[in-house]
Amino acid sequence: MYSYAKLKDFTEKIFIKMGCPLEEAKKGAEVLLSADLRGVDSHGVARLSGYVRLWEAKRINATPKVRIVHETPSTAVVDGDSGLGLVVAPKAMQIAIDKAKNVGTGWVSVKGSNHYGIAGYHAMMALEHDMIGISMTNASPLVAPTFSLDRMLGTNPIAVAIPADKQPAFVADFATTTAANGKLEILQRKGTDAPMGWIQDKNGNQTPNPHELKQGGALLPLGGDRDHGSHKGYCLGSIVDIFSAVLSGANYGPWVPPFVSFLPMPANPVGEGIGHFFGAMRIDAFRPADEFKTHMDNWISTFRNANAIVGEKVQIPGDYERNESEKRKTEGIYLLPPVEKDLKELGDRFGIVL
Amino acid sequence: MYSYAKLKDFTEKIFIKMGCPLEEAKKGAEVLLSADLRGVDSHGVARLSGYVRLWEAKRINATPKVRIVHETPSTAVVDGDSGLGLVVAPKAMQIAIDKAKNVGTGWVSVKGSNHYGIAGYHAMMALEHDMIGISMTNASPLVAPTFSLDRMLGTNPIAVAIPADKQPAFVADFATTTAANGKLEILQRKGTDAPMGWIQDKNGNQTPNPHELKQGGALLPLGGDRDHGSHKGYCLGSIVDIFSAVLSGANYGPWVPPFVSFLPMPANPVGEGIGHFFGAMRIDAFRPADEFKTHMDNWISTFRNANAIVGEKVQIPGDYERNESEKRKTEGIYLLPPVEKDLKELGDRFGIVL
Repeated sequence: MYSYAKLKDFTEKIFIKMGCPLEEAKKGAEVLLSADLRGVDSHGVARLSGYVRLWEAKRINATPKVRIVHETPSTAVVDGDSGLGLVVAPKAMQIAIDKAKNVGTGWVSVKGSNHYGIAGYHAMMALEHDMIGISMTNASPLVAPTFSLDRMLGTNPIAVAIPADKQPAFVADFATTTAANGKLEILQRKGTDAPMGWIQDKNGNQTPNPHELKQGGALLPLGGDRDHGSHKGYCLGSIVDIFSAVLSGANYGPWVPPFVSFLPMPANPVGEGIGHFFGAMRIDAFRPADEFKTHMDNWISTFRNANAIVGEKVQIPGDYERNESEKRKTEGIYLLPPVEKDLKELGDRFGIVL
Repeated sequence: MYSYAKLKDFTEKIFIKMGCPLEEAKKGAEVLLSADLRGVDSHGVARLSGYVRLWEAKRINATPKVRIVHETPSTAVVDGDSGLGLVVAPKAMQIAIDKAKNVGTGWVSVKGSNHYGIAGYHAMMALEHDMIGISMTNASPLVAPTFSLDRMLGTNPIAVAIPADKQPAFVADFATTTAANGKLEILQRKGTDAPMGWIQDKNGNQTPNPHELKQGGALLPLGGDRDHGSHKGYCLGSIVDIFSAVLSGANYGPWVPPFVSFLPMPANPVGEGIGHFFGAMRIDAFRPADEFKTHMDNWISTFRNANAIVGEKVQIPGDYERNESEKRKTEGIYLLPPVEKDLKELGDRFGIVL
């Protein structure tokens, strides 16, 4: 077990070794580690060496000039200048928040970025301002639209954070696929089967074999198949892709660059880097914030107290992650042996002790 | 078969008999009939007598004073004054469009409304202005959140319309459940089973029996069960509910009034009527519209031309509805015998010939 502080400090030092300015290294480490705290192990420190390899391959710029390239009172397009998504994203979300302060809402589409950690972190930035936060990003193609044999979309997550009063905030944060890629990686590691409806093989047949993804298969959109609404998951993933990349001028669909440095960049790019989309809506641009938050408390407690299937209870989006976060802050964060080994090797290369 | 013009004229006359002003009767008929044109038979003229019964029960006000009760440059809350949702919704969407003209985007949450027809109609209003349109609404509770035995949410649809250049627009319009209630009604009528994952019985077990919904069962959120991501469908339905009703001051969750007049209004309402949420984003608030639309053409043709499973092809959201619309405009609209009978009876009562 490692303490949050220890892993954050380690990550920060690695980012500094990459040449990130101190404040950006701190922020990037905070964003990355928020995944480990919230129990989304696939998106946290386990990916640190991946970011380093992208920097070594000159696909990540450690000293980006993040800037607004176009704006109106409620919108902006931000060029991430190939920076760490972990750093570009909170800057872009801050712009959305600032615009919401002025005109009620702010909407920012980002190009020229890289993987931004968990979607939820950025959406949650809005909460302390009594705003609703929205965050989405496209990602490299792993997902086949309904009836497609080709991978055309990423797991393209959506996060929406909504403040409450006495109740904890409502925080939805989910991939627009049946299961996130991280869950598949866990099954691949364990050598166990996936439920049907998560994956198809190269011929478009559903398969329980998580390794088919490496053999021409694909993840399936939320819904799994046409009868179970996969066309709706396909719609959601597409909307994320278009808002994040076609609005901003980033790469979209099959052109989104891979996270892993050993895969080549797609030929004939249609934009710059990967894309994100952020929104901030001031609650009191609609109704007094205290009124809204009182009703949110009622909404949350009503749903939480719904009659449930024996042995289960109805959860509120964000419950699991908040509970994990509280536990891990005190008990520490467990790293799988291969992740620990990978980080120690990374530390050795940069002269930093894990 | 009935011509679109005939059914629209009939609907308009019924609305006029209810006391709607001429322009509102015309608009309401156009919105209602857009469902029949687009192949969403459950949301079209088949519901006309339902609206009339709600008016007779004094739950619909034929002469509402639709007004903005709070606003900022990019937002508004609209009070529908218990009007037909078919009339309130396009007025609210127009406000969103007007705000987008001024500050880049417009976002309108609506209270005091009623069923608004198909979500897609309102989203598509943005297209002619080179804007992205967003439309969602809550609805009476038929859906059990993951692990819930109680029905807490409506089928809460989301529509997003995105303009392209030479390609037809991308128009997603879908219930946040595995299957919309209309599809279930078709199965109930035919007496055939539903796929597993659509419905649960009163004990929370999945069932293929579409009649279980009348015996304490519930529709399931997109995903169907926890293993297949139903918690994501539950998140989506919740977001629609909160944006539509907690932001505006409408009824939310289990308090949303029923569409059918024979069910009582929920006790202790938490707001007014049902709620909608609309958004309009000006494309050129992000990048030049022609640039965006050229990339949308590329996005659409790339996805349309993806390799597909034998005998199928990859569709673009909106393809089915647009094809139906073109066909039905020329060939006419088929009414099921019980719908035809119901409309004829309605016509007889009001002295209007179908």
